[in-house]
Amino acid sequence: MSAHHFSEADRELLYQVIRERRDMRHFIADSKINDVVLTRILDAAHAAPSVGLMQPWRFIHIKQTGLRDSVVALVEQERVQTAKQLGGREAEFLRLKVEGLRECAVLIAVVQAPDDGTVFGRRTMPKEMALCSTACAIQNMWLASRVENLGMGWVSFFDPEALANLLACPEGAKPIALLCIGPVREFYDRPMLAQEGWRQGRALQECLFEDSWPENVPNE
Amino acid sequence: MSAHHFSEADRELLYQVIRERRDMRHFIADSKINDVVLTRILDAAHAAPSVGLMQPWRFIHIKQTGLRDSVVALVEQERVQTAKQLGGREAEFLRLKVEGLRECAVLIAVVQAPDDGTVFGRRTMPKEMALCSTACAIQNMWLASRVENLGMGWVSFFDPEALANLLACPEGAKPIALLCIGPVREFYDRPMLAQEGWRQGRALQECLFEDSWPENVPNE
Repeated sequence: MSAHHFSEADRELLYQVIRERRDMRHFIADSKINDVVLTRILDAAHAAPSVGLMQPWRFIHIKQTGLRDSVVALVEQERVQTAKQLGGREAEFLRLKVEGLRECAVLIAVVQAPDDGTVFGRRTMPKEMALCSTACAIQNMWLASRVENLGMGWVSFFDPEALANLLACPEGAKPIALLCIGPVREFYDRPMLAQEGWRQGRALQECLFEDSWPENVPNE
Repeated sequence: MSAHHFSEADRELLYQVIRERRDMRHFIADSKINDVVLTRILDAAHAAPSVGLMQPWRFIHIKQTGLRDSVVALVEQERVQTAKQLGGREAEFLRLKVEGLRECAVLIAVVQAPDDGTVFGRRTMPKEMALCSTACAIQNMWLASRVENLGMGWVSFFDPEALANLLACPEGAKPIALLCIGPVREFYDRPMLAQEGWRQGRALQECLFEDSWPENVPNE
């Protein structure tokens, strides 16, 4: 058993990393990440909690240039589809989403493994709990990347079936993220979507209730 | 823009928090958490990334004793259902899931807000991406709790509809976690399920592929 006691300074440091983590879309082209650094980031992912100790995350490191090009093409197709649904000024933002994929030092697809049948802790919400485990691993990677002074962006603009085919995933496996990781010139001060005036975040108080969901809360 | 550079010591500290975070089931009964500390943990949650800046997480702090009793009763019902599917020694573990709920200083239900219709970044996987955002917020709370020297456990043994009713959640809102947070005597050295011999975690290498999912990988 461990009784390690973290100090006030430790606490402030963690909170600083959490506050300064950003979903990055701008990377320094033609940059690299040392293998040792990448392994530390992946170790952080793999230290995440998972329901019933399933560890349902799989990481496919996309190394071949031709394969990255095919992934970019898939994302580009989805960008066009999303732009059609949005239209106007909003569609302009979508350009940023693709640039990250081309320029980031490392591109990793995160794939949800086929269900292994674990019952423990997930009888009523099996898919949700497995997915949440993988998301926790990705959040660890985000914080790890930031403390390594690297940016990370989670690209979700793709058709999961098409990407699964491209990566030869077996039946039941589902890609949920394309992670762009790499050196950046600097980090956004605020979430990029807020900085660009797309949408502003809400206050914590709007998300925090006592004992029950209050009546007449707008859902915007 | 921020160009803050984290040091090697900062990095080691974050990795230590990530390594020492545990899904806790044992808490010190009749303990309390200072409001200032709880707010820091919730601020960390609220600093999480979210797709399209949806911030789809809602936290319901369960303060009334009678309400906590009702939540415990719901979890107890689900424990019995799960135990029926497992049987034997495994079912014994499930007791721990309930005890944490009774003894932890603070009990928070995390509820997925009704869909607000955001298209950005979630056209192809709308539910998954919203859910992953909330899971990232919970992972931040886990790390925050650990650095505050508090334990946190994510209980997922409940019928989400029954819990939604108990907490007066509106149509479309879905509880995904009961978070037990509070002082603990010490932290498990390894995940409790591994420590107790229920299941051992796999090596990172088994979860890491290059360019495509390899053939003939067992899925256990």
